[in-house]
Amino acid sequence: MKHALPVSRDDFAAWYQSVITEADMAEESGVRGCMVIRPWGYGMWERMQRLLDDRIKATGHENCYFPLFIPLSYFEKEAEHVEGFAKEMAVVTHHRLIADGKGGLTPDPEAKLEEPLVVRPTSETVIGTAFARWVQSWRDLPVLINQWANVVRWEMRTRMFLRTAEFLWQEGHTAHATAEEAREETLRMLEEYRAFAEDCLALPVIAGEKPENERFPGAVATFSIEAMMQDGKALQAGTSHFLGTNFAHAQNIRFQNAEGQLEYANTTSWGVSTRMIGGVIMVHGDDDGLRAPPRIAPWQVVIVPMLRDAPEDETIVIYCKALQKELAAQSAFGEPVRALLDLKPAKAATKRWGWVKKGAPLILEVGGRDMAGGNVSVIRRDRLYRADGKLDSAVVAKDDFVAGVAETLAEIQQGLFDEAKARLTAGIRPVNEWNDLAAMFAEAVEKPGWADVAWSRPTGAALDAVVERLKALKLTIRNAPLGQTGHPGDPCIFTGEPAMERVLIGRAY
Amino acid sequence: MKHALPVSRDDFAAWYQSVITEADMAEESGVRGCMVIRPWGYGMWERMQRLLDDRIKATGHENCYFPLFIPLSYFEKEAEHVEGFAKEMAVVTHHRLIADGKGGLTPDPEAKLEEPLVVRPTSETVIGTAFARWVQSWRDLPVLINQWANVVRWEMRTRMFLRTAEFLWQEGHTAHATAEEAREETLRMLEEYRAFAEDCLALPVIAGEKPENERFPGAVATFSIEAMMQDGKALQAGTSHFLGTNFAHAQNIRFQNAEGQLEYANTTSWGVSTRMIGGVIMVHGDDDGLRAPPRIAPWQVVIVPMLRDAPEDETIVIYCKALQKELAAQSAFGEPVRALLDLKPAKAATKRWGWVKKGAPLILEVGGRDMAGGNVSVIRRDRLYRADGKLDSAVVAKDDFVAGVAETLAEIQQGLFDEAKARLTAGIRPVNEWNDLAAMFAEAVEKPGWADVAWSRPTGAALDAVVERLKALKLTIRNAPLGQTGHPGDPCIFTGEPAMERVLIGRAY
Repeated sequence: MKHALPVSRDDFAAWYQSVITEADMAEESGVRGCMVIRPWGYGMWERMQRLLDDRIKATGHENCYFPLFIPLSYFEKEAEHVEGFAKEMAVVTHHRLIADGKGGLTPDPEAKLEEPLVVRPTSETVIGTAFARWVQSWRDLPVLINQWANVVRWEMRTRMFLRTAEFLWQEGHTAHATAEEAREETLRMLEEYRAFAEDCLALPVIAGEKPENERFPGAVATFSIEAMMQDGKALQAGTSHFLGTNFAHAQNIRFQNAEGQLEYANTTSWGVSTRMIGGVIMVHGDDDGLRAPPRIAPWQVVIVPMLRDAPEDETIVIYCKALQKELAAQSAFGEPVRALLDLKPAKAATKRWGWVKKGAPLILEVGGRDMAGGNVSVIRRDRLYRADGKLDSAVVAKDDFVAGVAETLAEIQQGLFDEAKARLTAGIRPVNEWNDLAAMFAEAVEKPGWADVAWSRPTGAALDAVVERLKALKLTIRNAPLGQTGHPGDPCIFTGEPAMERVLIGRAY
Repeated sequence: MKHALPVSRDDFAAWYQSVITEADMAEESGVRGCMVIRPWGYGMWERMQRLLDDRIKATGHENCYFPLFIPLSYFEKEAEHVEGFAKEMAVVTHHRLIADGKGGLTPDPEAKLEEPLVVRPTSETVIGTAFARWVQSWRDLPVLINQWANVVRWEMRTRMFLRTAEFLWQEGHTAHATAEEAREETLRMLEEYRAFAEDCLALPVIAGEKPENERFPGAVATFSIEAMMQDGKALQAGTSHFLGTNFAHAQNIRFQNAEGQLEYANTTSWGVSTRMIGGVIMVHGDDDGLRAPPRIAPWQVVIVPMLRDAPEDETIVIYCKALQKELAAQSAFGEPVRALLDLKPAKAATKRWGWVKKGAPLILEVGGRDMAGGNVSVIRRDRLYRADGKLDSAVVAKDDFVAGVAETLAEIQQGLFDEAKARLTAGIRPVNEWNDLAAMFAEAVEKPGWADVAWSRPTGAALDAVVERLKALKLTIRNAPLGQTGHPGDPCIFTGEPAMERVLIGRAY
């Protein structure tokens, strides 16, 4: 069977790149490691922003904006944080260019900065400094803020959406009077991420705690949501950190408690990024391109008029415009339906396949015969082909389609989730012996998924040894799922000691 | 009469800074020239983004995202653009830090970039490069895109919101088949800016064309909207540029026309920034702080319960929660009313004056007596004091207040606009002689406003001479208002030659 993409998921890396290109989501920018996010990709990000921002605000957070540049000295304060982040960052050293005398430009040696500025890789240091100004008394707590921003981490190997030098994200930062409150906040936002990923992106995830070796630099505990891609690999799709008083000590965030004593605040931070778009592609895409979950599809319904340079064309366009209006008057997921009438100068078949590759949930084709019968021809992106392999285009009465559009979109959203959830569930397998683990992830095994193993939560050198053994198999511990109750089961797969909990192990992006 | 701010508008510069501080809008960040935008300031920016973004999309533009970094060589292509922008920019030269051996960090000499990267001061160069890839045929035109982004211009003297090293803005970029179409687009977006400023920010503006010497580097024509601050100075609040084929030549944006011939595209760009927030402060603020126009106020109605650590408190809070719900169920300006119940642990009077300084349009105080009578005590921020100088707090039946809240908000919005419009109109005076102009802007004159003069639109050395004469009086030509019809009137105030048009002259931020 022929598909719309030039490559199939059998070559997963090439397929991923192909979806991004064919769906016009993003492209290389000519600037090392930075991409151009095109309207279809950015439109999805805007939808994610809107939906997640609503949740962030509903949980009491306010948006702010902090500087792009962070003085070098800010990074020198929190030792572990420096260690983890101080390596690959973009450093601004000059504030002026001058002619180089050869027709080009060069940084002006006269305009060298006294203290270099780092382009933020994350903002704990600069936001913590503000918290120290804002927080004086217990009455000033909690401080609950968030920012939507671009950040830069100088990655050696980049991959669109998944790992780019510059990326877009939100970073929440909070300060609390007690460790308990800060831990609650950390888990509250993790739960918001889980719900957002599952409800809005149709991305089933496992929420859990990262092992010590995977903690954010300077954190006491790091939690993540992990999604399983169609190749069985894991994608860390969001993280939430309990920072204890580590950053408060480094940045002097102190408050007078109700008893008049000075205490250090407990802080948290949490973020999700444009990386999630990569997750959406790798979970919902197929050999015909992306399948955009309706809640984040920039356009949920696209109307393609079948024009033939004939006098009839005009009435078809009128029919389509009325249809678009009727659809926009419908409400799906609590918002007006996003319906586009595609009037670009291109052939109808080209447009159809363009929207298939972009993954618009519903594509309507309207020709003279459809119009005459008061119908539309409906293509559902989640059920593209009939059993005989032909494109499944169903003629439906226009009014019925309009009346049922919200339900159809909800059904598509749920269907994408269910499919991915089944894959996730099937992809996680309990493993009790190291040899079984090694066999599960042997070279020849395709899509091994994740192993669910019991471990003793070793620390120090013992943990290092575990990490090294896993590294040899290109594996990492993804997280220890939350909500584990009772006994973790068998002895630790690594140490043979009594297990403390179960963790998920897999390959990852 | 005593006011809420420590300084009055008589010391306009100190007053401006005081509003920003007392209304918690922004603060110094510790990073040179960069500010922290706090929730009340950022909330206003979010409102502006939402309202302007709707207009940008309604006129057919799509949002994208382009890289923060621009390779040096991109700037070398468009000669005038380099000249105008290549001076004060942040330059990234290294991509790694290492320990400096003295306990600190330093840029790693091993990690010097081959080609330095400029932090975007504006994105014509990088977006034009993308346009060159996207545009092949007339069918690909027009390209209509926009991005919301941070940009950096290394300003020597900075001032919050008005001139900061980093600022937030939107930049629209479009490419068209013909110069006519591109000019139309330039003026269409200027008109969108005018309507947005007047309808949403209650900022009356004059839309017009900038003189040649004030054009954007590389533009064929630059248009602006200019607002008058309460000290009579002008603030350029938005610009729209017709770039002709200048950037298309530099970046090779060419298309095959319907006849099969290669042509250069005509491009435009247009932007507004967080600077507009400075304009809102300087137009609508008073000696008690900001008066936020309801359409962009993060909270339109703030409810302050008058609690006294008494058993009655609980029922007051219940009453207030119900009130908040009723208000949120109302619609103003086509959106749900944004009503906040302020339950922070502070005294009611402190909260009241905090909201006065922030400029929340309506402040409701609810004590036991209000509740008993089914009332609320209403403070309108636009009519803060009675004739006798006392705070004007009116007891109103709760249900009446709720039923009328949309109308009251609309009245406040209109009132702020009318007041500013009257000031703008009164502040512009026709001047026919150079001596009168000099007298109008003599040192001793307070709030001189703008002069409306006829000029012959000189170019080259003659224009330079005009610019120099005006500079001596600290004046600039703001713009030549659009829609001028018929004869411009008197001879040119500078050259004595027959006038071509009338221009506005004033001092500016």
